[in-house]
Amino acid sequence: MERDVFFVSDRTGITAETLGLSLLTQFNGIKFVKHTRRFVNSLEKAREVGEEITRLAREKGRPPIVFSTLIDEDMRRALATADGVFFDLVDTFIVPLEGALDQKSSHTIGRARESLDQSKYNLRMDAVNYALITDDGLHTQDYNRADVIILGVSRSGKTPSCLYLALTFGVYAANYPLTEEDLEDLRLPSALVGHRHLLYGLTISPQRLHHVRSERKADSPYASLRRCQYEIAQAEALYRREGIPYIDTTTMSVEEIATTILHQMKLAWRLA
Amino acid sequence: MERDVFFVSDRTGITAETLGLSLLTQFNGIKFVKHTRRFVNSLEKAREVGEEITRLAREKGRPPIVFSTLIDEDMRRALATADGVFFDLVDTFIVPLEGALDQKSSHTIGRARESLDQSKYNLRMDAVNYALITDDGLHTQDYNRADVIILGVSRSGKTPSCLYLALTFGVYAANYPLTEEDLEDLRLPSALVGHRHLLYGLTISPQRLHHVRSERKADSPYASLRRCQYEIAQAEALYRREGIPYIDTTTMSVEEIATTILHQMKLAWRLA
Repeated sequence: MERDVFFVSDRTGITAETLGLSLLTQFNGIKFVKHTRRFVNSLEKAREVGEEITRLAREKGRPPIVFSTLIDEDMRRALATADGVFFDLVDTFIVPLEGALDQKSSHTIGRARESLDQSKYNLRMDAVNYALITDDGLHTQDYNRADVIILGVSRSGKTPSCLYLALTFGVYAANYPLTEEDLEDLRLPSALVGHRHLLYGLTISPQRLHHVRSERKADSPYASLRRCQYEIAQAEALYRREGIPYIDTTTMSVEEIATTILHQMKLAWRLA
Repeated sequence: MERDVFFVSDRTGITAETLGLSLLTQFNGIKFVKHTRRFVNSLEKAREVGEEITRLAREKGRPPIVFSTLIDEDMRRALATADGVFFDLVDTFIVPLEGALDQKSSHTIGRARESLDQSKYNLRMDAVNYALITDDGLHTQDYNRADVIILGVSRSGKTPSCLYLALTFGVYAANYPLTEEDLEDLRLPSALVGHRHLLYGLTISPQRLHHVRSERKADSPYASLRRCQYEIAQAEALYRREGIPYIDTTTMSVEEIATTILHQMKLAWRLA
């Protein structure tokens, strides 16, 4: 079965998508067809989206689901009166929040934008630069500025995890690739010895690693299942021996890997 | 005035934070003290958070605001019965969604994780690699694989925007720094000529650029206000002359820059 879903926002649409998609994962066996409508910031645009929803409802004989974070009252009405099943993510909570906070809300479009905190922006940019500078074992002399140093074998997901931590949380995340020698010796590389409390390991199923590496270099020794099995076994042995916390990223998204590290390393303070 | 806010999730907490923070921006003049409690995935942990909320309510003489995306019924109850103002982001919408979809929800903790689509994960990783390979004008021979090529002067926000596009949307985003010569000649660099339809420009206020550059290299000619004014004026003249769409990133967050580019360049298809 198929069902159309609209995510409508006067800004980026990230909030509507994040909550909406998360709610829809609770329903199995339905194929949801996504329509994201970002920057719907005028009554005219809201009406257009409303008409699109009504048209689609007629064509498919089924009203689309609509998740909206529109704030302006007229624009919300233009959407709510269309032939969709309307979920108002803002209004549903704003009125009770006004009660709890004993204050009227500002009902301002794009408010979040105004309140953008420039110092946090700088912090994130610095963190991204740090992640890039220290990517893949580079500039280990800068590890004294790290919040966390992520370890793993080649293609275990280190770089995206570091970038996500930097972009989203402003965390200084370096990453260090375990080399063949490190894995053979089962010894902590010397660059890491003074920073043991910052280390966090990634692991992954050998099958999945084999698959990922094969997409790069098919039929190479580097991508062989045997090689992947050996490297993962050695990496995990090293983590255990050195008391380094680690996670299996095989079925995790980048968001989950990054927030798990944030949580376990208690790093959630920089952008708090 | 200060108010404590809890974001409680059995997973990453991203959904609870995204919607919760977005709702709170509608209320001015209140300092919100954030407490994010991620991976609350047992009744015991939920009870602990509940006790923390009740304790804080007593200490501060004011019930904290609680945004929850917990799914398990018992865990939600443990939280709902604490001394907070409880906003249940899941349950509020799940029941009407069950009606609209004519299906019971699975009420499963961590469902989103199971439904992780591995091909999308690979796509994102490939996009991140692409952004890294083509960062800062490198590997222009790979521009035939680009979805978008972001232009701008040094420190105008190109790299974080590309990384965000890659990590979040799986978009192949390269970036190219406009050099002194490009700006003096007001001519499109030759590497870009064949890719005009992929170009997107960033601009920024000279004052802000001056500030950002000064943090790197204080009192350098590179960071001088005069230099920043000149570069920005020339970059904007180049964009206009070549018909390149562009945005002023001065007061924008990375999310906003990235989604604006996605929207204007109609790129929202890769992870759709």
